[in-house]
Amino acid sequence: MTAGRHFLQIPGPSNVPDRILRAMDYPTMDHRGPAFAEVGCKALKGMKSIFRTESRVVIYPSSGTGAWEAALVNTLSPGDTVLMYETGHFATLWKALAQKLGLNPVFIEGNWRAGADAAEIEERLRADKGREIRAVCVVHNETSTGAVTDVVAVRRAMDAAKHPALLMVDTISSLASVDYRHDEWGVDVTVAGSQKGLMLPPGLSFNAVSEKAMKLSESAGLKRSYWSWAEMAGPNDKGYFPYTPATNLLYGLNEAIDMLHEEGLDNVFARHRRHGAAARAAVGAWGLEVLCAKAEDRSPVLTAVMMPEGHSADNFRAVTLRNYDMSLGNGLSKVADRVFRIGHLGDFNDLMLIGTLAGVEMGLRDAGVPYRAGGVQAAMEVLGQMSDNARAAA
Amino acid sequence: MTAGRHFLQIPGPSNVPDRILRAMDYPTMDHRGPAFAEVGCKALKGMKSIFRTESRVVIYPSSGTGAWEAALVNTLSPGDTVLMYETGHFATLWKALAQKLGLNPVFIEGNWRAGADAAEIEERLRADKGREIRAVCVVHNETSTGAVTDVVAVRRAMDAAKHPALLMVDTISSLASVDYRHDEWGVDVTVAGSQKGLMLPPGLSFNAVSEKAMKLSESAGLKRSYWSWAEMAGPNDKGYFPYTPATNLLYGLNEAIDMLHEEGLDNVFARHRRHGAAARAAVGAWGLEVLCAKAEDRSPVLTAVMMPEGHSADNFRAVTLRNYDMSLGNGLSKVADRVFRIGHLGDFNDLMLIGTLAGVEMGLRDAGVPYRAGGVQAAMEVLGQMSDNARAAA
Amino acid sequence: MTAGRHFLQIPGPSNVPDRILRAMDYPTMDHRGPAFAEVGCKALKGMKSIFRTESRVVIYPSSGTGAWEAALVNTLSPGDTVLMYETGHFATLWKALAQKLGLNPVFIEGNWRAGADAAEIEERLRADKGREIRAVCVVHNETSTGAVTDVVAVRRAMDAAKHPALLMVDTISSLASVDYRHDEWGVDVTVAGSQKGLMLPPGLSFNAVSEKAMKLSESAGLKRSYWSWAEMAGPNDKGYFPYTPATNLLYGLNEAIDMLHEEGLDNVFARHRRHGAAARAAVGAWGLEVLCAKAEDRSPVLTAVMMPEGHSADNFRAVTLRNYDMSLGNGLSKVADRVFRIGHLGDFNDLMLIGTLAGVEMGLRDAGVPYRAGGVQAAMEVLGQMSDNARAAA
Amino acid sequence: MTAGRHFLQIPGPSNVPDRILRAMDYPTMDHRGPAFAEVGCKALKGMKSIFRTESRVVIYPSSGTGAWEAALVNTLSPGDTVLMYETGHFATLWKALAQKLGLNPVFIEGNWRAGADAAEIEERLRADKGREIRAVCVVHNETSTGAVTDVVAVRRAMDAAKHPALLMVDTISSLASVDYRHDEWGVDVTVAGSQKGLMLPPGLSFNAVSEKAMKLSESAGLKRSYWSWAEMAGPNDKGYFPYTPATNLLYGLNEAIDMLHEEGLDNVFARHRRHGAAARAAVGAWGLEVLCAKAEDRSPVLTAVMMPEGHSADNFRAVTLRNYDMSLGNGLSKVADRVFRIGHLGDFNDLMLIGTLAGVEMGLRDAGVPYRAGGVQAAMEVLGQMSDNARAAA
Repeated sequence: MTAGRHFLQIPGPSNVPDRILRAMDYPTMDHRGPAFAEVGCKALKGMKSIFRTESRVVIYPSSGTGAWEAALVNTLSPGDTVLMYETGHFATLWKALAQKLGLNPVFIEGNWRAGADAAEIEERLRADKGREIRAVCVVHNETSTGAVTDVVAVRRAMDAAKHPALLMVDTISSLASVDYRHDEWGVDVTVAGSQKGLMLPPGLSFNAVSEKAMKLSESAGLKRSYWSWAEMAGPNDKGYFPYTPATNLLYGLNEAIDMLHEEGLDNVFARHRRHGAAARAAVGAWGLEVLCAKAEDRSPVLTAVMMPEGHSADNFRAVTLRNYDMSLGNGLSKVADRVFRIGHLGDFNDLMLIGTLAGVEMGLRDAGVPYRAGGVQAAMEVLGQMSDNARAAA
Repeated sequence: MTAGRHFLQIPGPSNVPDRILRAMDYPTMDHRGPAFAEVGCKALKGMKSIFRTESRVVIYPSSGTGAWEAALVNTLSPGDTVLMYETGHFATLWKALAQKLGLNPVFIEGNWRAGADAAEIEERLRADKGREIRAVCVVHNETSTGAVTDVVAVRRAMDAAKHPALLMVDTISSLASVDYRHDEWGVDVTVAGSQKGLMLPPGLSFNAVSEKAMKLSESAGLKRSYWSWAEMAGPNDKGYFPYTPATNLLYGLNEAIDMLHEEGLDNVFARHRRHGAAARAAVGAWGLEVLCAKAEDRSPVLTAVMMPEGHSADNFRAVTLRNYDMSLGNGLSKVADRVFRIGHLGDFNDLMLIGTLAGVEMGLRDAGVPYRAGGVQAAMEVLGQMSDNARAAA
Repeated sequence: MTAGRHFLQIPGPSNVPDRILRAMDYPTMDHRGPAFAEVGCKALKGMKSIFRTESRVVIYPSSGTGAWEAALVNTLSPGDTVLMYETGHFATLWKALAQKLGLNPVFIEGNWRAGADAAEIEERLRADKGREIRAVCVVHNETSTGAVTDVVAVRRAMDAAKHPALLMVDTISSLASVDYRHDEWGVDVTVAGSQKGLMLPPGLSFNAVSEKAMKLSESAGLKRSYWSWAEMAGPNDKGYFPYTPATNLLYGLNEAIDMLHEEGLDNVFARHRRHGAAARAAVGAWGLEVLCAKAEDRSPVLTAVMMPEGHSADNFRAVTLRNYDMSLGNGLSKVADRVFRIGHLGDFNDLMLIGTLAGVEMGLRDAGVPYRAGGVQAAMEVLGQMSDNARAAA
Repeated sequence: MTAGRHFLQIPGPSNVPDRILRAMDYPTMDHRGPAFAEVGCKALKGMKSIFRTESRVVIYPSSGTGAWEAALVNTLSPGDTVLMYETGHFATLWKALAQKLGLNPVFIEGNWRAGADAAEIEERLRADKGREIRAVCVVHNETSTGAVTDVVAVRRAMDAAKHPALLMVDTISSLASVDYRHDEWGVDVTVAGSQKGLMLPPGLSFNAVSEKAMKLSESAGLKRSYWSWAEMAGPNDKGYFPYTPATNLLYGLNEAIDMLHEEGLDNVFARHRRHGAAARAAVGAWGLEVLCAKAEDRSPVLTAVMMPEGHSADNFRAVTLRNYDMSLGNGLSKVADRVFRIGHLGDFNDLMLIGTLAGVEMGLRDAGVPYRAGGVQAAMEVLGQMSDNARAAA
């Protein structure tokens, strides 16, 4: 069945809106000419408004993984200790990356069913009498589990421990979908990517960099060239880049920034919260369990759902793809085949959400997974109530 | 609320797939050059496969209304009598058009709740002893009501009455969505447009023309130039047109023809029937009434729904547009504000249908229209059962 | 040789700019919904600014030929006499169309080497004591010959003869490329199309209609429905259309109108004049003859070039297409194979012009046509001088 | 002056053809789903045919600079000596990059007016008795000067010296424009980017990797994660990537590969050689000097032109951009403001070249640079002669 639009309901890449695809569908321009400077300045300045920062933003032609690497190589030296928290698969990958770069990651184990525990981080920092920990790294929205880490609490923990480590936050799947404030929350390096809340195809990644982190980069001992913030700074100040930028993706980025501000970032965040609540209502009505066990950590961006014992999540996803032309996210590493993930982020609305949940409900049926009908109905009720509340409040 | 895709669920124009928009997004070419001949030949030949005819197809740069006019001016003379059947708003418009052109339409009144009644047509033809009726004109799928006319039965009625009139059929909203066979069903002139089952933007219209009709056009007395079949014939035989064609829409048309054959016309028709059944199940579950009262005439393309007494269909539609970014069709003329129409045609799939029906169900709630919840659920059950049956049959 | 961009240098369709193609590459919308009204109003109002008229503009989903037909059927009655002037192929086609519609065209013969002669028109009008001539029809820019008719002189001639006939002008290949003023010049019906100066793909046509013509349409006896101005008027006043409009072409039209005003109509006209002068300098340098013999009538939009005796223009064009991937216009009817036409209109600039003229110069060589090298060089000199003059004047 | 198409005649990014932009203008897909595997396999396999290699190709979401870094970090260890050749700005940048990564580049000085001298390389290698040189790095087509290095000669020199160093070649501005054979020429690591001969927007880069290089990567001591070949290998074998790939650029890449094979790589190379010859003929006719002093090293991809003493190349480029909407390449570092570069690569044809050269010739005039007219004419003659020769040979 191939008629109609594919439902791309993985937790990113998200559905790219026509406006953005069309903005990218223009001839590439001279990246050293005067017209480009306008594009570059708009992108760099616009991304500050999305990160909610006054300090420097760096844009790479790379996947989000590259921005993880950039955060580390610009600020740290070989053998440096970094404190990381195992919220799920992506936190684990980041840790592995740190190891490959010759760092010494200390990994706080987690059960993949909640965000990072700020109290535990505080404890580790207090115990670090020698101040060997150079950076605390957390994932804001863990894409593999659908759990959000309370970054404000982490910052508070660091302050309480009076620890000078840098705070680094991966917002790859949260930026522009979940409220985030680089400056206000005291983050040093924020890591982001283009293909989730920013509604772009993959291919751009970002660092937002505090003055403290920028200062540290002058003495950081890890080798770097492509990822070097210092090399970006000069050309960026005039809207240019030290090497050929991904021009057409920048066209799309500028359109995305416009779209986000047209809707209003707070409205964008509220929309995601509402869709998250509706998706979880559906899961509950089906009699299934949300992977994220801690209610207040549940993600507005995606919902990871545990399969009933003895049923294959991957088989269910294959059935759903075949019968309803919808892609769902798979369970990664530890939860492979035991979890599926519903993405409800980016350029998304109520009717797309209901279509998505209907695909899940009909797919459960087709795949012979035990479930109770009524999830879609439950989601519609939540959407209605939350609209009523919003209208009442307005 | 403007995030995500608009749901364009009027009964045409239908949602244009990306492949078609992208095929149109190419430089216009020389319409007298050799490359164009390939485009023109493919379009003209391809449309024969869609009309299921071996005789001539004519393509106009015009709306479907133009193809109505073309059907009449090529075959008839001033004052000619044509027998038409009031299936709804569009049949009535066609009648008005005939009058403006100086023809004498005899209009069989209908109640807008069924397709044309072949028995009544037969009766009128038998009564026409002088053979003054030159043409019988029916609308295959009446877009204003969601009622399908049984064209085979009409042909049979004409044959039974041994009447030599031409049979003209408007398939503007049925072609490439509902089974249709120009040759096998003995139709003389079929009228079609680009923006429904053909999944294109509006701007092209079509006539399929039997040899009998083509022959009659040599002596038909109505004046014509733009619509003249005779002028098309020569250039068309080599893939060209007598005046500048709508080149970029032809690019899209060729892509549409490919897409329809890739899916298979019979699969396309089955898909529309399944969606029609599911939509009607939803209407029934809501406790509302489908406008088309005759069960076997109900359209696979759209479902017109009667509003409960005292409630405004237009207000409901406005609420749905505002709250769910979905466009529904309005009630036209006689049924204005008393009916709304759900389009489920063209490039459409199960999850888009469920999203659409959810928009209706939530819109009914928001607009304060009395209804029972559960329409979406009922539709999902029909989709599931019909899939099971299809799989069992396969 | 297929790399790089095709040079579409026929005198229309012209090269469609990316902005316009991209504007059209958006989902079709509900043509009865509120968002459409904005599109429709902008298009209708915008076209007034292009025609330079305060009276009504009508937009058809059709080729330009349709707008010719519309001009006649809305204002005339069967058997009416119209005075037409044989400037070339397209004037002849318009005459043939008038005949097919049952009108009585009086055709002033021309030699295809100049615009219409206002003195001759005045003479005919003065001779028409019975005032039987209902309309004077001229082609502003005759696309088959590259000759411009002085519309102001024609109007003056009509006024001098005190003749009440309507003045109808075909601006299909001149509008938005050559200065034109519907109101100031006292034109009653202007006919236009989308695929030339408006830079759109073909598929839209236009009438600008004076109050006098609109008034006459109330009593005009020719039958009409699709082309009826009266039916357009009501819906148009709110931005809507009486039948489904060519929505995506309207998206493109609105972008085109914006682009024309961004550049400034006067600048657009000056650009075309400059390119016409440069093209003619090239023709002269090659030792070839421009078809339009009257210097002041030579078109800024296209240059028709006479082939040396004994050489086939069509063979030359085929060689040029094969060797340089450039389409040139062919000679039509009377001048078939004896003339080729270079289009230099629409979205066009100096370097595209030089590339075009280089294709002609190299094509002449490859096809064995006798010519002198240096046409491209001569064109470059004209471009330079005219730029110098423009800068000196500024 | 903004009408018509911009002439993007920098030596890359090159003009992206519509087919490629349109191929990219599709919804992003699930990079872990079955449909993606087809995209990924086609891209990876297709790039082998472009590199003319049977061994591994690696694709990065990054600029070409990233692929330079990848070549080094996968094969070398801290402090390793690499022999590099100063052909121009980009060779110098690569050297600087090697230093930043902690390598020890030995840089053979050059005068920026020729490709690398194989004899000098051989001499250095023979002198390296201790076999400390781990890699020889040359730039195939030096984009800053328009000089091509004879890679076959370099390989021969290495073989003659019996030196085991790796051979690394930067083909960023030559691949798919200039004949190149990774396997046949015995290259170990080839570096490439998307935005030149591959006709894509920037954002993808490539390594082609010999078995010897791949083997060495197992023990190479430089730290790496993003650039790691080892991590790519596993997922790549099934068409996937270890992190989110730049999906939409891959869509475009597959279209580019198809286009290159449709034209035929040898035809593509011949086309570039012909355009290079014509461009140099123009420069000669103008009385200007080509930067590349060694005739046999002159690039088919770009022509760098020396400005007459006392004239600013950047002022000339600014005039050309303003008056003719054409972007030319600037002189970089050592030759800043003294050289301008004409790109004639990628999706390019004869008429675009003549338009380009006309822009230069008219720009020289407008900027008051001393020159002789006739460069465009000279280029046309070369194009004609080379076509004649090609036809005679065929």
